[in-house]
Amino acid sequence: MLAIGVDIGATKISFVLMKNWRLIKRRKILTPKDRGVLIKTLKENIERLIADLPKSKILGIGIGIPGPLSKKGDLILNPPNLTCLKNFPLAKIIEKELRIKTKMANDVNCFTIAEATIGAGKGAGVVFGITLGTGVGGGIVINGKIYQGAFSSAGEIGHATINFDGPKCTCGSYGCLEEYCSERFIKREAGVSPKELEKKARNGNKKAINIFEKLGYFLGIGVSNIIDILSPEIVVIGGGIAKAGKFFLKSVRKSAQSWSISPVSKKYVTIKKAKLGDFAGAIGAALLLKS
Amino acid sequence: MLAIGVDIGATKISFVLMKNWRLIKRRKILTPKDRGVLIKTLKENIERLIADLPKSKILGIGIGIPGPLSKKGDLILNPPNLTCLKNFPLAKIIEKELRIKTKMANDVNCFTIAEATIGAGKGAGVVFGITLGTGVGGGIVINGKIYQGAFSSAGEIGHATINFDGPKCTCGSYGCLEEYCSERFIKREAGVSPKELEKKARNGNKKAINIFEKLGYFLGIGVSNIIDILSPEIVVIGGGIAKAGKFFLKSVRKSAQSWSISPVSKKYVTIKKAKLGDFAGAIGAALLLKS
Repeated sequence: MLAIGVDIGATKISFVLMKNWRLIKRRKILTPKDRGVLIKTLKENIERLIADLPKSKILGIGIGIPGPLSKKGDLILNPPNLTCLKNFPLAKIIEKELRIKTKMANDVNCFTIAEATIGAGKGAGVVFGITLGTGVGGGIVINGKIYQGAFSSAGEIGHATINFDGPKCTCGSYGCLEEYCSERFIKREAGVSPKELEKKARNGNKKAINIFEKLGYFLGIGVSNIIDILSPEIVVIGGGIAKAGKFFLKSVRKSAQSWSISPVSKKYVTIKKAKLGDFAGAIGAALLLKS
Repeated sequence: MLAIGVDIGATKISFVLMKNWRLIKRRKILTPKDRGVLIKTLKENIERLIADLPKSKILGIGIGIPGPLSKKGDLILNPPNLTCLKNFPLAKIIEKELRIKTKMANDVNCFTIAEATIGAGKGAGVVFGITLGTGVGGGIVINGKIYQGAFSSAGEIGHATINFDGPKCTCGSYGCLEEYCSERFIKREAGVSPKELEKKARNGNKKAINIFEKLGYFLGIGVSNIIDILSPEIVVIGGGIAKAGKFFLKSVRKSAQSWSISPVSKKYVTIKKAKLGDFAGAIGAALLLKS
């Protein structure tokens, strides 16, 4: 059986082809900003991916979206970095164009189901996935399925408040977790990009390492809230900034232990770095077809 | 079919008898502090409750415990207000003594399943229950079942952090939600008990009403975190302090709306006062036998 996964990011789109849930093909392209061009590009790339393959073996297409979906999950609401898809029923259109069953989900949910199924969280019952990048995203997988809550929007840890007296967030609230462990935090503290800070840390720059540890400390407070509220078996941390995970994962663990209340949860919970790399989102999108 | 529910509180124990999931008997007694006396008292009161009834119709006994359970749910860990039950397998002992199937769960989980099944959250898919009293507790019910997470301890919203620069909590961390909406908050702000403050508010005392509104504002920040992370359909607020709900529920709703990020969740979520009163915990304990 074959499944196609597409992860639409603000700058790049990743495509994967999976055979019996193993990755057999992958490619990355730039994201067109015009909706018509975007749809044409998606169509052409998917067609190229399955050019020589029997259509009868294709389970479907899964698409990861960088933003929230509507209550029913059929419309893309208002992706801040991909405004051309606002209120657009992308899955329905692709399904109609290609005559292949198509599902879509939030990209962090796709990341989490990929890590929960074949990545760092494999075998765990309750997995919380966190992505650290421009923003901070979160997703929940319970017994192999994305938990979306009552209104298709669970997992939004990035804008949960950890310090209501803290700095104003882009969302309008104050002291969101995102203010303390996204790219904005690194730029505010270090004046450089996460990549540059990682380079400095790898060169042994103590100030750079300290900033990552501080990020880890704050992220640990957010993770402690997840541990107390959700009691996950594993918390998986991914996204661009997690590439520097060796500089902050220890502080995340220490801080989460110290801020969490539940004696059992904090003893048994595992906090791990994501395993699947840049294609995790697309792999997770393909895995949407599994259930 | 008959089910017995017992809610063991720090000062009182409530007993209910349910017939076809309707309350037919209830009673309340003081909580003995000695373990031997406590078990004897439980046994005698349960026997009195079912004195003239056929044992074959009794589904079992459910017990609500004021504290966390072990990973497997078979041991009471360390209830802060009922130390005589520390590391004690109460359900197993009661089952052996009375020869009736016995289950136990955390008391806030019992409160939540009662409200989710026959109370304010009836019919909702995902219900988050909050109790405001000496402490602040939380419980999650998904599709009619208690969600305990991977390690039997989910729902602990009282010690989730909303202000890491805030006052030190009894748990050792800083700025837990509990510091802003439990009895301690009211005593700190008003110098009186929640009951006395409620009385003042009912008499139109503006300062008293303001303190309740402040409590509601902070609780709303905690509720916004629940909305963002869990996307519940309904948040039900109970416990002693909720008796003064008319003075703070509006501010909870307003604050939760303003601090929450998810456009869909915050539009559709309902925040309600609990419906079942003082026996909610015991009713929920009986409902443990339903699944």
